[in-house]
Amino acid sequence: MYKVFGDMLSGNCYKVKLLMQFLGLEHEWIPVDILAKETHTDEFKHRNPNTRIPVIELEDGRYLWESNAILNYLAEGTDFLPQERYARAQVLQWQFFEQYSHEPYIATARYINKYLGLPKEREAEYHGKQAGGWKALAVMEGHLAENRFFLGDKVTIADISLYAYTHVADEGGFDLSEYANIQRWFKDVEGIPGYIKMARENA
Amino acid sequence: MYKVFGDMLSGNCYKVKLLMQFLGLEHEWIPVDILAKETHTDEFKHRNPNTRIPVIELEDGRYLWESNAILNYLAEGTDFLPQERYARAQVLQWQFFEQYSHEPYIATARYINKYLGLPKEREAEYHGKQAGGWKALAVMEGHLAENRFFLGDKVTIADISLYAYTHVADEGGFDLSEYANIQRWFKDVEGIPGYIKMARENA
Repeated sequence: MYKVFGDMLSGNCYKVKLLMQFLGLEHEWIPVDILAKETHTDEFKHRNPNTRIPVIELEDGRYLWESNAILNYLAEGTDFLPQERYARAQVLQWQFFEQYSHEPYIATARYINKYLGLPKEREAEYHGKQAGGWKALAVMEGHLAENRFFLGDKVTIADISLYAYTHVADEGGFDLSEYANIQRWFKDVEGIPGYIKMARENA
Repeated sequence: MYKVFGDMLSGNCYKVKLLMQFLGLEHEWIPVDILAKETHTDEFKHRNPNTRIPVIELEDGRYLWESNAILNYLAEGTDFLPQERYARAQVLQWQFFEQYSHEPYIATARYINKYLGLPKEREAEYHGKQAGGWKALAVMEGHLAENRFFLGDKVTIADISLYAYTHVADEGGFDLSEYANIQRWFKDVEGIPGYIKMARENA
C-alpha cells in the first residue's frame, strides 16, 4: 500500500489525495506538521532532502517527491494521463505553469493571509503577489473559454494540479466570482466520481 | 523543421538548445527580445498566452511552452528520457525541483546581478535569494556525491534542466568552487558529444 507523507491543508498534498480518490487507490496518510519543522529531521531528509511535502513511499520502499511528479507516476496508464506524446507534453506544460507562474503567487498569498493572519511585516509581500496571481488566472480563464478541461474534452492531472490552489484562491484575495469559465470548470472537476473537498482544518 | 522562439542568454532557452544539439535536431532559432516586451504582442500571445520564452513550434504548426515540457517532448524515445515509470517520475521530480526550488533563487539572483547590474532598489531582493539558492545547491551536491548523473549512471533531461542555471550560478553570487561533486558533474555534462556553451551575449 502507498504511504503519503503530507498535510491535509496543503494544496500540493491535496492534489495527491484527490487523484488517489479518483483512482480508488488505497493508501496510508501520514500527517506531517511543517510548522513544527517535521520535514527537517534527518529521518525526513532521507525521504526528501529538499524537506518538503508531499512525499510518497511506494510499496517497495522507494520514495518520490514533488506533487506533480507524483501525479504523473500515479496516473500512468489511466485516463488521467494521455499516452500521446504531444498531449503528455501539454499536461506537463500546464503543470510547470502551475508551479512557476501560479502557485508562488496564489498559494503564497493564501498562506500569508489564511495561516499567518496577514501580519504587518508580510503585507507588502502579500500585495506583491496579487499581480502575478491575476495574470495566471487570466491565462486560465482564457484557455477554459475554449476548452472544457485543460487538455480539451477529458479531465487529466493538469486539471487536478491547477484546481488545488485555484478553488481556494479567494482565501488569498483573488475573488473569482466573475470568472465564468473557471467557475464552470470548478463544477466539472467537482462532478467527477470520487471527488472530495480539501480539508479546511487538520483533524 | 522545429522553430524555437527564445533568447540565447536565458538558461530556460539554453536547455532546449542544448538538448537539440545533443540529439542533432535541426531547428530554426527565432530571437525574442524580452526586454523590448516582444512576448507581449498579440502575435506572441497566440503562441504562449503566459508571455514567456522558450516556445517551440512543431512542424505541423502546434505550439508548446515551458522549457521542461519541451525537453520531455523532444527527448521522448531517446536515451535522454527513460521509459520505465519510476525513472520517468524521477526525471520530473528533479525538473519540478528545478523550477520551484532552484530557478527562482539562482536564475533570478543572476538576472538581478548580471543583467540589471545589481541596482540599489533590488539589493534586498538579491540578498534574499541567497539562502534558497544555497539550499538547492546543497541538495544537488548531496545527491551527486552518490550519483554520477541525477538518475544514476546515465544522463537524462533532468541533468540538462539543472545544468542550465547551475553552471552560471557564480554570476548570481554562488561560488561553487568548493562543491566537488557539482564540479565533477559539470565536466561530465560538458563531455557529452554535441555540447555547446551557453551564449554570453546575444549576437
